[in-house]
Amino acid sequence: MRIGVLHPGKMGSTVAASFAAAGHEVAWASEDRSDATVARAAGLIDSGSLSALCDSSRLVVSVCPPHAAVAVARAVAATGFDGTYLDANAVAPATVAAVGTVVGDLVDGSIIGPPAREPGTTRMYLSGEGAPDLAEALNGGPLEVRAIEAPVGAASALKMAYAGWTKGSAALLLAIAGYAEAAGVRDALAAEWHESIPGLTDRVERTSRGVGPKAWRFAGEMREIAASLASEGLPDGFHLAAADLYEHLSGFKDAYPGPELDDVLRELLD
Amino acid sequence: MRIGVLHPGKMGSTVAASFAAAGHEVAWASEDRSDATVARAAGLIDSGSLSALCDSSRLVVSVCPPHAAVAVARAVAATGFDGTYLDANAVAPATVAAVGTVVGDLVDGSIIGPPAREPGTTRMYLSGEGAPDLAEALNGGPLEVRAIEAPVGAASALKMAYAGWTKGSAALLLAIAGYAEAAGVRDALAAEWHESIPGLTDRVERTSRGVGPKAWRFAGEMREIAASLASEGLPDGFHLAAADLYEHLSGFKDAYPGPELDDVLRELLD
Repeated sequence: MRIGVLHPGKMGSTVAASFAAAGHEVAWASEDRSDATVARAAGLIDSGSLSALCDSSRLVVSVCPPHAAVAVARAVAATGFDGTYLDANAVAPATVAAVGTVVGDLVDGSIIGPPAREPGTTRMYLSGEGAPDLAEALNGGPLEVRAIEAPVGAASALKMAYAGWTKGSAALLLAIAGYAEAAGVRDALAAEWHESIPGLTDRVERTSRGVGPKAWRFAGEMREIAASLASEGLPDGFHLAAADLYEHLSGFKDAYPGPELDDVLRELLD
Repeated sequence: MRIGVLHPGKMGSTVAASFAAAGHEVAWASEDRSDATVARAAGLIDSGSLSALCDSSRLVVSVCPPHAAVAVARAVAATGFDGTYLDANAVAPATVAAVGTVVGDLVDGSIIGPPAREPGTTRMYLSGEGAPDLAEALNGGPLEVRAIEAPVGAASALKMAYAGWTKGSAALLLAIAGYAEAAGVRDALAAEWHESIPGLTDRVERTSRGVGPKAWRFAGEMREIAASLASEGLPDGFHLAAADLYEHLSGFKDAYPGPELDDVLRELLD
């Protein structure tokens, strides 16, 4: 089938390539997109405008920053699109429900893992009525697509829980490292960790280099997770604090190599 | 020397026994204490009243719940005590500073590890002017006493950083497990963790059993950590959320064996 991908960013371009490898025609819309996106979309069919993309696609897949998920859905609905809309973003179930009021035929999705350049690293979860059939159709490339037998919202909830731990604990660890630095006990903490939690000092340094360049886009996801926990009567403070922390690190956007811990701590304590 | 320990709880009784093993006379005050404390203090000298304990001790060691730290120091100061006061509690540096305005000769302390029943498991950190000499005097039993060459506040800051990670991340993990349960994705999350974060499902279950019985006394410590981070301009939300979560689990106080995950999640989502 013809699939439209919005937008082929670092993750989305590998999703598009995987669907192409599975035998589909994959298109995108170059209108108003950055040079970096143009470069990443090489090999995809360029439909030009969003309207042309939606007219020619049976499935439209949204892979965008969490804060943009509803706006992207609205823009697609405004073209009169009447195919299946797959929202694959890291958003709260309530946000997916809002997307569902905008588009007609919605499948909920989420992605766990790094950009899917090789098999075995990355999974796309789908939920909702059409999920099992769609999963079968989309498998075949490096991205493994799995259906959860559950309504719209479940695939997103899974992502909230998963990233709630991985990115939430990464933020907590950086906050603790920042506190130890500020309070003058960084060496004493490293010595104690060395004995009782071996590997944690290395993990802080890896977290700094790994998370630093991506922190700019984590804040929105942390807020979606905070809202998700709050909607179930659980405390939202962990992830609101994480959002705050990641915002402080937005200056490391796309830094390569990732920032050293000293640089991250300097930003946090600035 | 004669050392007074306030109060020989689960941790304090092993601290007292360790100082006795190091060759000191260790006393306590049975007045107004529970039967459980009386049982744990077997083998220590009973001075009867706090006043008699302080009159006869050159060092008084406070090992109590964080919220009681300043009140215990005030009660000791009210006896006219003029020896060295060691505050070994899990409190913020600002709380230790408040203790320092109440007692004359203060050494800051903190304890990392379980009750010190055998060598190698548990360390007491000391900071402040008298810390190196005091550490030397107190070593010899199963509790290892280490001086940090830093002012009053550093030993407490080290504890805030250490427990900020261990107990903060435990709370985050339980919150995430609670969310997955509430959102109906617990099995899907366990399957994803099994592949990408092996061991994490086991860790949640261990955390439930290990933390459940102690959660009742963690809330105060989490608030001290939140205040510590805030005092350095870092977000306090992680540990305020953790305090909230641990309060929900206070009904498992001293449960043996510790509660199963299902029971913990039921309390969290009640």
